[in-house]
Amino acid sequence: MAAPHYPERLAKLQALLKRRNISVFLVTHPANRRYLSGYTAADHDIQESSGVLLIPARGTPYLLTDSRFTLQAEEEAAGFTVREYAAGLMALLRKLLPELGAARLGFESHYVLHATAGKLVGLAGKLGVELVPQTGLVERLRIVKSEVEIDKIRAAVRLNEEVFARVYPAIKPGMSETAAALALEAAMREMGAESPSFETIVAFGANAAKPHAVPSSATLNRGDLVLVDMGLVLDGYCSDMSRTFVAGRPDPVYTDRHRVVRRAQLAAMETIRAGITCREVDLAARRIIREAGYGDFFGHALGHGVGINVHEAPRLSSRNRGKLRAGMVVTVEPGIYLPGWGGIRLENMVVVRETGCEVLNRDATFLDL
Amino acid sequence: MAAPHYPERLAKLQALLKRRNISVFLVTHPANRRYLSGYTAADHDIQESSGVLLIPARGTPYLLTDSRFTLQAEEEAAGFTVREYAAGLMALLRKLLPELGAARLGFESHYVLHATAGKLVGLAGKLGVELVPQTGLVERLRIVKSEVEIDKIRAAVRLNEEVFARVYPAIKPGMSETAAALALEAAMREMGAESPSFETIVAFGANAAKPHAVPSSATLNRGDLVLVDMGLVLDGYCSDMSRTFVAGRPDPVYTDRHRVVRRAQLAAMETIRAGITCREVDLAARRIIREAGYGDFFGHALGHGVGINVHEAPRLSSRNRGKLRAGMVVTVEPGIYLPGWGGIRLENMVVVRETGCEVLNRDATFLDL
Repeated sequence: MAAPHYPERLAKLQALLKRRNISVFLVTHPANRRYLSGYTAADHDIQESSGVLLIPARGTPYLLTDSRFTLQAEEEAAGFTVREYAAGLMALLRKLLPELGAARLGFESHYVLHATAGKLVGLAGKLGVELVPQTGLVERLRIVKSEVEIDKIRAAVRLNEEVFARVYPAIKPGMSETAAALALEAAMREMGAESPSFETIVAFGANAAKPHAVPSSATLNRGDLVLVDMGLVLDGYCSDMSRTFVAGRPDPVYTDRHRVVRRAQLAAMETIRAGITCREVDLAARRIIREAGYGDFFGHALGHGVGINVHEAPRLSSRNRGKLRAGMVVTVEPGIYLPGWGGIRLENMVVVRETGCEVLNRDATFLDL
Repeated sequence: MAAPHYPERLAKLQALLKRRNISVFLVTHPANRRYLSGYTAADHDIQESSGVLLIPARGTPYLLTDSRFTLQAEEEAAGFTVREYAAGLMALLRKLLPELGAARLGFESHYVLHATAGKLVGLAGKLGVELVPQTGLVERLRIVKSEVEIDKIRAAVRLNEEVFARVYPAIKPGMSETAAALALEAAMREMGAESPSFETIVAFGANAAKPHAVPSSATLNRGDLVLVDMGLVLDGYCSDMSRTFVAGRPDPVYTDRHRVVRRAQLAAMETIRAGITCREVDLAARRIIREAGYGDFFGHALGHGVGINVHEAPRLSSRNRGKLRAGMVVTVEPGIYLPGWGGIRLENMVVVRETGCEVLNRDATFLDL
């Protein structure tokens, strides 16, 4: 059953294709594929596609896949003609492109391998088709979320908070990072999430100085700081949330640094509204951290968009001069990372609105020491 | 600490580079990166790299990453000079390539995006460097496993069997596919696996007609068949195993089909030895299934290599005329999939030896009805 938004998304994309004079567009990015068709299969990795969409500027679109996925594709992608590529994708394209009268074939330059593009070039040459590399055409549609999508993201964030609240009391001295990460992921699944949206990070003490720490067998000692970065997928949409706290009573050094990060987060959120540049939001947080003397210890961007993918556009970085638009959903996650000591990151998700931002998180635990 | 095999692998690759007159080689594939350097960071996806290797044909290799991963890279990749790309990879390459005197820059065509390759072309033009796309250079080293690697894979297979044996008694009428998959993944982690090597498949009855079924909330009824396809990662190496059985007493139709699949598996394993083509092994299994009247219902290839990646070369398919070599590790996984009825897949892993094959699985439960 196609939910009513699939035809609407397809119509928007087809309008874009006509405007760019692209006769047929090949969609290889799994999240774009899902967004347009409702087909939920995941790719194990880019070298193992579970299918592509072939979308003419006019008329019925195709979903091309192999025999492992045909049944699922037919069940999920109503409105798409499902075709199997038994002899490989290129052989099927060779047959379909002339049928569709393709003169200009668009493809996703940011999600097609150089080797695959080479094969497309060969095929296009044989068929007399012009290849038109595109970047972010479908992502441009996905970047602004509908209220239906925002409701789904809100639900994912709420579930994330419930999972964290349930597991938090069990994170005690003697527990390992791995055990804590495992407990969070098990609770996600038990409480109804489809899966984690990325590998859960739990880092104690100095291990938290790595922003992308991998949980180890190290165990928690009283007084250690604990950094948790976790996300889940619910109904196809992601959450992403970081919390940092101390096992026991925080010392003044910790408290001071925690407050700096929280102030940076609040300062950034105060700037967020439609029309502001991503750069300005990043710099609002960065300024607070720099003025507190930690400017060299906040090495990553302030945040990123979240939707079907846990990391998508826009990027809230000091180099992005693009403007926020109402309906975008972004993380706000300043951090301070000090080698040998540890790290603090506080991450909430917000919706950009015309005159401000809506914070999707309710849980303010540990944020205001 | 570099284990002694890293320098050896690097020396083999550098010899290959010299032979091809490649002055510097850019390694972007995460498994190749890990194989050569010991750096274990994973990529969330191809658009979010956690680093690349830059390997000159002579001298010390570099690991290039961003501030999130510098500490981990320095800890893990002994023998590599770690450099941070604060202003992006292209900016750092622009600085390093002339320092290294790069005349011909090789890159992994099968794991570089078309858009990224476009940037490399621009950079190479500016620097007067010739770009040399490569496919599978490091994979060629990885395809034959050392005995140390085979020991790790054997341990992963054994742990996989122990996990399955522990959870199997709990898979009973009333349990959902999702709950069974969750129980298997939780047991993996508890029993010491790093992670699943792919999303665990549990499919009941007709849902098993999809070779890549996604676990649903459907519950098990007495008499249903159960297809489990699971794998785990232990010490960086993968396992992959499928079992099919019946909740209760199998009926004669099930038993007959199960025996066909098992005979196909045994026939394939009997052919495996160094020097035989992948095609011949696939056809040995396919012949049995075809003769039993199910030729149209075995749509996928017979097997694939397993190592750092759960799917790697060689592919045991009817189209692959490449020869097996001693030390390759492959799955043997024939199946029959009948829409409306269900599917049966039996999957073991074997090591190719000079005169035959070594079956890595010990567990023969359910295989001989």
